[in-house]
Amino acid sequence: MSSIDPVALRRELHRHPEPAWREFETTARIVDRLQQLDLDALYVGPDAIDGDNRLAVPDDAELERWYDRARDAGADPDVLAQLEGGYTGAVAVIERGEGPTIGLRVDIDGLPREEADTDDHLPAAEGFRSATGESMHACGHDAHAAIGIGALEAVADDEDFQGTLKVFFQPAEEVIGGGKSMAKSEHIRDVDYLLATHVGLDHPTGTVVAGIEDFLAVRHLEATFTGEPAHAGAEPEAGRNAMQALGTAIQNAYAIPRNSDGPTRVNIGVVEGGTAANIVAEEISIVAEVRGQTTDLMRYMSDSVERVFESAADMHDCEVEITIGAEAPSAASDDELREIVGSVAEGVDGVDTVVDAAGLGGSEDATFLMKEVQDNGGLAAYVGVGTDHPGGHHTATFDVDEPTIQHGIDTLAGAIVEIAETRP
Amino acid sequence: MSSIDPVALRRELHRHPEPAWREFETTARIVDRLQQLDLDALYVGPDAIDGDNRLAVPDDAELERWYDRARDAGADPDVLAQLEGGYTGAVAVIERGEGPTIGLRVDIDGLPREEADTDDHLPAAEGFRSATGESMHACGHDAHAAIGIGALEAVADDEDFQGTLKVFFQPAEEVIGGGKSMAKSEHIRDVDYLLATHVGLDHPTGTVVAGIEDFLAVRHLEATFTGEPAHAGAEPEAGRNAMQALGTAIQNAYAIPRNSDGPTRVNIGVVEGGTAANIVAEEISIVAEVRGQTTDLMRYMSDSVERVFESAADMHDCEVEITIGAEAPSAASDDELREIVGSVAEGVDGVDTVVDAAGLGGSEDATFLMKEVQDNGGLAAYVGVGTDHPGGHHTATFDVDEPTIQHGIDTLAGAIVEIAETRP
Amino acid sequence: MSSIDPVALRRELHRHPEPAWREFETTARIVDRLQQLDLDALYVGPDAIDGDNRLAVPDDAELERWYDRARDAGADPDVLAQLEGGYTGAVAVIERGEGPTIGLRVDIDGLPREEADTDDHLPAAEGFRSATGESMHACGHDAHAAIGIGALEAVADDEDFQGTLKVFFQPAEEVIGGGKSMAKSEHIRDVDYLLATHVGLDHPTGTVVAGIEDFLAVRHLEATFTGEPAHAGAEPEAGRNAMQALGTAIQNAYAIPRNSDGPTRVNIGVVEGGTAANIVAEEISIVAEVRGQTTDLMRYMSDSVERVFESAADMHDCEVEITIGAEAPSAASDDELREIVGSVAEGVDGVDTVVDAAGLGGSEDATFLMKEVQDNGGLAAYVGVGTDHPGGHHTATFDVDEPTIQHGIDTLAGAIVEIAETRP
Amino acid sequence: MSSIDPVALRRELHRHPEPAWREFETTARIVDRLQQLDLDALYVGPDAIDGDNRLAVPDDAELERWYDRARDAGADPDVLAQLEGGYTGAVAVIERGEGPTIGLRVDIDGLPREEADTDDHLPAAEGFRSATGESMHACGHDAHAAIGIGALEAVADDEDFQGTLKVFFQPAEEVIGGGKSMAKSEHIRDVDYLLATHVGLDHPTGTVVAGIEDFLAVRHLEATFTGEPAHAGAEPEAGRNAMQALGTAIQNAYAIPRNSDGPTRVNIGVVEGGTAANIVAEEISIVAEVRGQTTDLMRYMSDSVERVFESAADMHDCEVEITIGAEAPSAASDDELREIVGSVAEGVDGVDTVVDAAGLGGSEDATFLMKEVQDNGGLAAYVGVGTDHPGGHHTATFDVDEPTIQHGIDTLAGAIVEIAETRP
Repeated sequence: MSSIDPVALRRELHRHPEPAWREFETTARIVDRLQQLDLDALYVGPDAIDGDNRLAVPDDAELERWYDRARDAGADPDVLAQLEGGYTGAVAVIERGEGPTIGLRVDIDGLPREEADTDDHLPAAEGFRSATGESMHACGHDAHAAIGIGALEAVADDEDFQGTLKVFFQPAEEVIGGGKSMAKSEHIRDVDYLLATHVGLDHPTGTVVAGIEDFLAVRHLEATFTGEPAHAGAEPEAGRNAMQALGTAIQNAYAIPRNSDGPTRVNIGVVEGGTAANIVAEEISIVAEVRGQTTDLMRYMSDSVERVFESAADMHDCEVEITIGAEAPSAASDDELREIVGSVAEGVDGVDTVVDAAGLGGSEDATFLMKEVQDNGGLAAYVGVGTDHPGGHHTATFDVDEPTIQHGIDTLAGAIVEIAETRP
Repeated sequence: MSSIDPVALRRELHRHPEPAWREFETTARIVDRLQQLDLDALYVGPDAIDGDNRLAVPDDAELERWYDRARDAGADPDVLAQLEGGYTGAVAVIERGEGPTIGLRVDIDGLPREEADTDDHLPAAEGFRSATGESMHACGHDAHAAIGIGALEAVADDEDFQGTLKVFFQPAEEVIGGGKSMAKSEHIRDVDYLLATHVGLDHPTGTVVAGIEDFLAVRHLEATFTGEPAHAGAEPEAGRNAMQALGTAIQNAYAIPRNSDGPTRVNIGVVEGGTAANIVAEEISIVAEVRGQTTDLMRYMSDSVERVFESAADMHDCEVEITIGAEAPSAASDDELREIVGSVAEGVDGVDTVVDAAGLGGSEDATFLMKEVQDNGGLAAYVGVGTDHPGGHHTATFDVDEPTIQHGIDTLAGAIVEIAETRP
Repeated sequence: MSSIDPVALRRELHRHPEPAWREFETTARIVDRLQQLDLDALYVGPDAIDGDNRLAVPDDAELERWYDRARDAGADPDVLAQLEGGYTGAVAVIERGEGPTIGLRVDIDGLPREEADTDDHLPAAEGFRSATGESMHACGHDAHAAIGIGALEAVADDEDFQGTLKVFFQPAEEVIGGGKSMAKSEHIRDVDYLLATHVGLDHPTGTVVAGIEDFLAVRHLEATFTGEPAHAGAEPEAGRNAMQALGTAIQNAYAIPRNSDGPTRVNIGVVEGGTAANIVAEEISIVAEVRGQTTDLMRYMSDSVERVFESAADMHDCEVEITIGAEAPSAASDDELREIVGSVAEGVDGVDTVVDAAGLGGSEDATFLMKEVQDNGGLAAYVGVGTDHPGGHHTATFDVDEPTIQHGIDTLAGAIVEIAETRP
Repeated sequence: MSSIDPVALRRELHRHPEPAWREFETTARIVDRLQQLDLDALYVGPDAIDGDNRLAVPDDAELERWYDRARDAGADPDVLAQLEGGYTGAVAVIERGEGPTIGLRVDIDGLPREEADTDDHLPAAEGFRSATGESMHACGHDAHAAIGIGALEAVADDEDFQGTLKVFFQPAEEVIGGGKSMAKSEHIRDVDYLLATHVGLDHPTGTVVAGIEDFLAVRHLEATFTGEPAHAGAEPEAGRNAMQALGTAIQNAYAIPRNSDGPTRVNIGVVEGGTAANIVAEEISIVAEVRGQTTDLMRYMSDSVERVFESAADMHDCEVEITIGAEAPSAASDDELREIVGSVAEGVDGVDTVVDAAGLGGSEDATFLMKEVQDNGGLAAYVGVGTDHPGGHHTATFDVDEPTIQHGIDTLAGAIVEIAETRP
């Protein structure tokens, strides 16, 4: 019987969402629970990750703002002190005799978006809507963290388990920023089998996907178009118009040819620039991303987007500076683990459908950890746990159907014990 | 001999630029100088303008931020108290016996842009660069205010002057926001002759333009494109992409057909929106403006831009909300005043070239006051005072060649006295 | 031993390529060969197809021009007489006792494009380059027709064969125009098993693909943008510019969001319009196509393209008339036939690689026949026969590596005999 | 009293419109009339122009097609023989004693567009609609030729006239192709005063514009975008898409910034390219033009358009070849001639309004002749003769209100006589 209520924990985390590398309060709350369990080791913040391999870290002012927020909210100062500067996340370890080393990776960060505040949005109706006003758990990482702790406790309580379990509470998945730092930490090196998990993904409550088949490789790009300002009434011809470069860039970026080798994606998600209605815009910045079923397809899109941005700048006599940001490779689940997960899931209470394999459509930096384990000769699988979610992932009305959490705990803990029993 | 040094005043104002409706410190510094003169009346803030006809007023938080800034900078608390809520500007009056009522209008606001900080930028080299870091007198309104005070003092000191002079220190020209509020105040009603002025406009130091021939009518528009967010990797087709609507809008707005009836202009000057690289952008806002040689041409552009924005939204299944903002009519200088100004300018020390008439190319909300006076049966002229400006208007390296200031004072004060003498 | 040399026939057909529904000479040459064989029935032109279900038929003048060309070239007048009006193609039948009815479908049309005339282009070097100057067998249908006749003769000569074989020489595949008319003819109704074939598809000589996995559904659209002309110098604003509508339409059509349900395609392939440099274009027509892995995805693209075209017209105050043209459903090869084809191919001389299944990427109106047979309870497979082709499909330097032809004949004839032996 | 009925001649020419450099029948009909007059010299075809300075000449096949058409229509073979190869036009001369040499320039070509065929279109109702089906006098050059002959006869009949009159019947104005060849011919060299004329221009019947103030300089450009074809379904990424380059080029060409120095124009008037719906377009050609109030402004537009086309090609990895075509300089009417024309027009029967000066908005290659005369120390004016035209210039329903023709004859002949009398 679990001592920690995973649904209560999920609601608590849901109420306090923090975006990538700012999971100060989140980490502190997770550590607080972990300290209630009988662990053999616990690594927090800089000890959990390889700090030099953090990607897409926000600037100091932003980190400080959220750090102060966590402190003011009463987060444990001892834990906080370790996280300063944006070194978040944790790794919890239990060792139970001889046996393989099995990893479970869950992510913990929220998104920088406002949450719905209508009565039909359960977190609003039940009082655990985001308290920050500017961030939201709109992708279920609150549930992931709860599943991670629940599975850890379940395995710890299972007398049959022989081996080592490491649960990775990974920060900064949403910006594809934390996976690499965990994949490059020492903790991953001896992992023989890795499971990662995600709720939802358009599968309903009661469905488990034993192994996600493929992940799109992804890359983030930032671009700043720089022209020259001019008075738009008096001398429109004297300017070099970053706004026109932007318009040309947007139109052509989405029009990069589809590729017969497989799915590709492109998105320009954020834009900001210009100074006033009557000034030809001097500088405009955008944040974009590209994806591909393979790393080659992602690079095809990245190269194409760069050409588009450069030609758009040239077109309007502007300059463009492009910065390649975070990226993650593509990866796939191994059949052997998929079979174990599938057979365990069949027996889980409340699970009525087990899907052997399904695509993800999106990207995930769990692929960094999966590839690291696979490259070391191990096996990895990414397990989908269905949930009825009212709004789409990343939208204001996303929510997790809470029975899902126990489905996830039972499936993953069961699979971990089964792996330890059946695999060398 | 003037008691107030207009060049010193100009530098003082240059160092403390405040954008539209936030000219708290600026108004206080001007009032401070006016109080040193022998005025017959002084109207400040809400008494100087018709508060209900203010256009393009920023939100309360923004007003408050600048108000607090002015207070912290030590601006006279008695003056400040009158300006609270963004009622800035002043009207100063001297009455000298029987004679016509003559108005002189100068504007006083800065622009929301950073100022150059290089050695070859005189304000930086001489220590009067903007102290705010975020605003700049990049269009010479610091010089305009200094000219207004200098001309007031010169007329007051001129024993020949018979009549009434009202100097309008108008706020918020840059957003076309203050002209209407002054044109609708009681102070304009009895004005028989109105002069307004601007430095630079690509005329060199030593040149005076006796009357600007035409002003483009102008209108500001704000538009917000609203779509629907979606995860750009997992379900790109599920979104309705405000970013694509934006791209289509930009490209087509600038491509509105040129019009054979006369010059037109269009500019999209500011853009902001979207939430993250991996989310299909839900909402993006832009600030745009259109101009035309006549009000009809301005409306042709405004109608065309609205069609473009609406079609761009439709194209991507988005909505767009368009708000018509500030606008100003077109206007022209009257020949009679132009002749007087021209003949006075011929005799001003340092003026070597008098241009009878020239176009402006841009817009100006002085046209509200000019049209009000002209509609009441009076005459108006807009006088250009040349200045060698290193950078273009509204750019980071704009500066005023300071001898210009005395040229302006002498020309305008001389013309005011001459009008009073020669016109009924 | 075959009496007809398939390579010589392929070269003959290559030299006289005719585009869709204009295969007058082509049909006559094929019929000439068929008449040398011991057939049980031969249906030509209107007897081979359902004339009412022809799609994308050119106008009468165009048909007549090619008809006259064929007549002048000496094509058999008796055959020609049957084809008048664009009723081309043929169905050849052999009946050999009790057994299933098996169909083999090959297509016979060329493309409206010029052929390369360089020494390294074999048809040019060896003297069988297109004699028309304006059309070319740039997709291997010349080889398909030769394979069809070769396989027919091989099966006819095989004493083991028991059953009925119908070879469909289908016109107008390149415009997706002929498949439906053959699928709706009476000849398809009793077909139990259908094989179709294509050379190349980026598989090298020596490879056979036993069954193409999926075909993109496809639809053609024609759109005419209509505005209003005006003198572009004197009154640009008086026009309604179809050229600008076109520009907006192109940019946005290619930018229709990728779909997570599967591959999609869009292309605008042809454009024509406008009258003179100094006239605002009044009318511009385009020819476009959309595709999708499923018929739903194709419709998603078609609906999106229609929205784009309509919004682009609205944007520039133009009208657009959109005509839905030819289309073909998606389809897939059945496993049972794929297995038979694969095992036969393993034994074919010169075939070194058998690929069980592969995607096509493109579309094919063979899917009409395949679906018809499958909907009637039969089975179908689409067999790829690899060929080293120097230029890509549809380009000026495409060519067929001729050993491929015998590979195709052996594989298909072998599979037909095997099907008749092993299937009820 | 005139022996030639100018209205009948205009209708005859209207019925047989020929586009630029193809005015074979037109020239023959004009020469036929000129031969009825008492001329001192008549130069036809290559003798009337400098053949090496013809611009925008169509290809031989096109010239031949129209040449054959004229021959088949019964045009005088002796005249035709002189015009072969596209050397059209004529110069007619009368010498009447001592006096200045005065030129009158009229243009004679039609437009390549279909004419309206509705009852409310007078040429259709009265039976003189274009007989060619593909060309139309949609800009009044039929009336211009009739005015030229009428004025010639009127001056010849005027006993007061002392001097030399040369009437230039100029070909190929619509493509800006003939002006330069007449300006560079020997006939212009001794011209002291030049008048040119145009009907309509949005001025109603009864109005004469004594001198058009300014003409836009103009330049034609042809551009061909070349990419690489690919099968749009199978390998969209393998193509380099000229259609996308086109879309980008159109959108950005119209969006070239307006210029504060004066009016500018841009138009892409004709487009053609691509091969089939399913092929990525390899080659697309466009015909464009740019204009500017001054030659500098025209060059600003030309440079900008070239940059746009090149960037659009780069954007899609295509090439573009740009050919600069015909062009004409800007020019203005001289005040001295304007005054004479105005005062003469005041006395013309049927003329009720004389406008001193007006803009044209468009371009005209009469500027070549005007500038040539002005550069030689002479004077020039371009005279507008108002006409009520139901449809706009260059549209299918354009027509000339025929009383205009006599207004033109009287005004121009009167001015020519007056110039000869009053000017040295």
